[in-house]
Amino acid sequence: MLQSWRRLYSTALKATPSKIHLHKPIPSDNFPKGFRLTGLHCGVKKSPSALDLAVIVSDAPSDRTSAAACFTENAFRAAPVLVSEEILAGNKRARALVVNSGCANAVTGQKGLDHAWAMSSAVDALLDPPAEKQTMVMSTGVIGQHLPIDKILSGIKTGATDLGDNFEAWERAAKAFMTTDTFPKLRARTFDLDGKKVRIAGMDKGAGMIHPRMGPPKSSLHATLLGFVATDALISPPALQSALTHAVQRSFNSISVDGDMSTNDTIIVIANGASGMTEPIEDGTPAFSKFQDELTDFCAEIAKLIVRDGEGARKFVTVSVEGASTYEDASKVASTISTSMLVKTALYGEDANWGRILASAGSVSDSLSKPLDPSRVSVSFIPAATLSDTTPLKLLTRGEPETVDEERAKVILSEEDLEIKVELGIGNESAVYWTCDLSHEYVSINGDYRS
Amino acid sequence: MLQSWRRLYSTALKATPSKIHLHKPIPSDNFPKGFRLTGLHCGVKKSPSALDLAVIVSDAPSDRTSAAACFTENAFRAAPVLVSEEILAGNKRARALVVNSGCANAVTGQKGLDHAWAMSSAVDALLDPPAEKQTMVMSTGVIGQHLPIDKILSGIKTGATDLGDNFEAWERAAKAFMTTDTFPKLRARTFDLDGKKVRIAGMDKGAGMIHPRMGPPKSSLHATLLGFVATDALISPPALQSALTHAVQRSFNSISVDGDMSTNDTIIVIANGASGMTEPIEDGTPAFSKFQDELTDFCAEIAKLIVRDGEGARKFVTVSVEGASTYEDASKVASTISTSMLVKTALYGEDANWGRILASAGSVSDSLSKPLDPSRVSVSFIPAATLSDTTPLKLLTRGEPETVDEERAKVILSEEDLEIKVELGIGNESAVYWTCDLSHEYVSINGDYRS
Repeated sequence: MLQSWRRLYSTALKATPSKIHLHKPIPSDNFPKGFRLTGLHCGVKKSPSALDLAVIVSDAPSDRTSAAACFTENAFRAAPVLVSEEILAGNKRARALVVNSGCANAVTGQKGLDHAWAMSSAVDALLDPPAEKQTMVMSTGVIGQHLPIDKILSGIKTGATDLGDNFEAWERAAKAFMTTDTFPKLRARTFDLDGKKVRIAGMDKGAGMIHPRMGPPKSSLHATLLGFVATDALISPPALQSALTHAVQRSFNSISVDGDMSTNDTIIVIANGASGMTEPIEDGTPAFSKFQDELTDFCAEIAKLIVRDGEGARKFVTVSVEGASTYEDASKVASTISTSMLVKTALYGEDANWGRILASAGSVSDSLSKPLDPSRVSVSFIPAATLSDTTPLKLLTRGEPETVDEERAKVILSEEDLEIKVELGIGNESAVYWTCDLSHEYVSINGDYRS
Repeated sequence: MLQSWRRLYSTALKATPSKIHLHKPIPSDNFPKGFRLTGLHCGVKKSPSALDLAVIVSDAPSDRTSAAACFTENAFRAAPVLVSEEILAGNKRARALVVNSGCANAVTGQKGLDHAWAMSSAVDALLDPPAEKQTMVMSTGVIGQHLPIDKILSGIKTGATDLGDNFEAWERAAKAFMTTDTFPKLRARTFDLDGKKVRIAGMDKGAGMIHPRMGPPKSSLHATLLGFVATDALISPPALQSALTHAVQRSFNSISVDGDMSTNDTIIVIANGASGMTEPIEDGTPAFSKFQDELTDFCAEIAKLIVRDGEGARKFVTVSVEGASTYEDASKVASTISTSMLVKTALYGEDANWGRILASAGSVSDSLSKPLDPSRVSVSFIPAATLSDTTPLKLLTRGEPETVDEERAKVILSEEDLEIKVELGIGNESAVYWTCDLSHEYVSINGDYRS
């Protein structure tokens, strides 16, 4: 006992740092044209300095605006998920979004639905001209509590007088998304499409209850992860949904912090055509491929920020599974390794315990389209690019353990970044997952979340 | 940051106690007749006081002895699993067992197989008369390291001179099973069958990498959990396997410590007929039903000891799922709740955060034979029998949150034992899982296992 307590304290003393250095200013010109937004404190969260309400509006004409979304597949979808889904089903051209943090409005019955509709309608009424069912809704925070709806409605009115399109406005909105996040997650990029400069910008939040599986509305695919992406590309609603579904699978649906799927996970993208493009992008065109690639890469960029800011996370780990029969098999193995408590504690302890990686991979073998063959499996660590020696460290080669240079393993594992590469040797398909370690701080945060 | 560090320390200061009080003496007369066994230190573990080798032998004639087993379904089955499976396939009447702790002999290639066979043969040679392929093998410990086979073989020779049938001999064997366990897990019981007094006794080990799914040899069902059960009942090999498969599903396959499935999980039962029964028990008879019920109850008794001694565990939690369409659906929901990191940290923090229970249940809805209907689901806490008020505490009733008496919830959650009851409201089938909390100590133990 004494021995293990000594271990606890020695390990616990390595403090988890805030990741605020990952938040950087972005030139205001890099944000998509035609979006105005804000973030403010309306009173859902206790601390007056904590922003808890965001309002986002596209001013472009309705007929040039497309919206698409992916929602959690949890059976207990929260009221804002149900409401956003209904709005999107009736109107693929929704052009506004209202978001609160601090309370998830999940498992709140009819009253919760009424609250989500009230939020949506309040923003609709402030659009120019006033509209109906044009505003989607997101909420994140504690489950099973009702929203302080009066504070939120009053906050929406205040917010409407303070909408902006510069970096500070985007930053305020991103801050209003945050719960246990240690920094606002905001990124933007620019690329050319059909001779026009097109912009994508977006924000997301999430640090725990992160193992999304999200699908398009009323479909069957996993994330409390909230994400909003804006673009001034001109794209048709079906093409936008198609690109988003592809992008979400290879980004948000390929990350895990704790393996727990939320009732509220939602990614919403609004494209408003304000770039000046004249022809809307349609599925199957070269422009579509380019847009889908940019959107996928952008979603992966902001999804990875969530893992890096995972509750208590000290490590950012890429799990690459190659040589599988199908993408789904590769993704399943990568997901299982990424959620193993033993793998995640070994990463925290900087212990090259590859047996745990293997045991974890082997546990899903019987649910794969082609079972694993132990004699074909290889495992290696790919060192972080920050190290001078980035030669892969082989741990297992075709079922046979390598003699591991433990000193080198220690150096590799002491870095924040690491890639675990698993080669199955039975096919040509691959998948990537991003995960973090499981630390004392994770337990502290989640053993005492509500108080 | 400061705030969360304060939380960490205040929570961490509640020390995880050893569970040694759960180890109690058993009258030697309660152990099945005809078994002789021992446990000793042969040198796999570093500490000279740590037992690491057990030898168990049934002296009854071969033709009255039946053996049955359930093995891990992991693709990376360890050498001892492969060897025991082969022995059992050729000879359902195996009558001895050799077990080492400290090294799992898993992912050790051909050399590992040779080692496992050498252990088996060494005990075979010491049987009276000497036999072939009569000794099954189990190993537990670190993956990917070779056994110190000379030390083990020499230990087997020493052990053979020290076999006993009293409580102390059974206790030594049980101690040799242990890895991170804080007490030897040994139980015995007696009941009447066909007018004869029949005894069942057994031992198991395991505290981490516990989420078994074990099936009969070469079959398809999950556990490093090792268990050995001895009985002096007279029962045919197929009837014994049938009873064990049923028992394992409702005991070892219904527990979780960390959700990680091992490469070595093995349960072996040997029945030697030494009770004096004249007719062997066959499947489908009333005697079989009685024996199967006793075996299932016994396996559940020793399986629960593993959860109570789970790495870093302070809580013993029963997750009961009722009102499902099928047993498999109920079991899947119970398993998912039992492995949720957010549920387990909330239990550790003694936080009545039922939203996490619900989110977890909802995450598997789309893989059930009949999806969940949120408006039919109810959740309650059943207080430990140690409390004066054992009225269930309702948290959610048919989809609507209850106003929870947080003070009472606190009292209920402060006990070591708790039952989480989830009523799905869509069928008549139920399943039970046993799990523990996720503590700082779990992270300490597993962040630094090999050093």
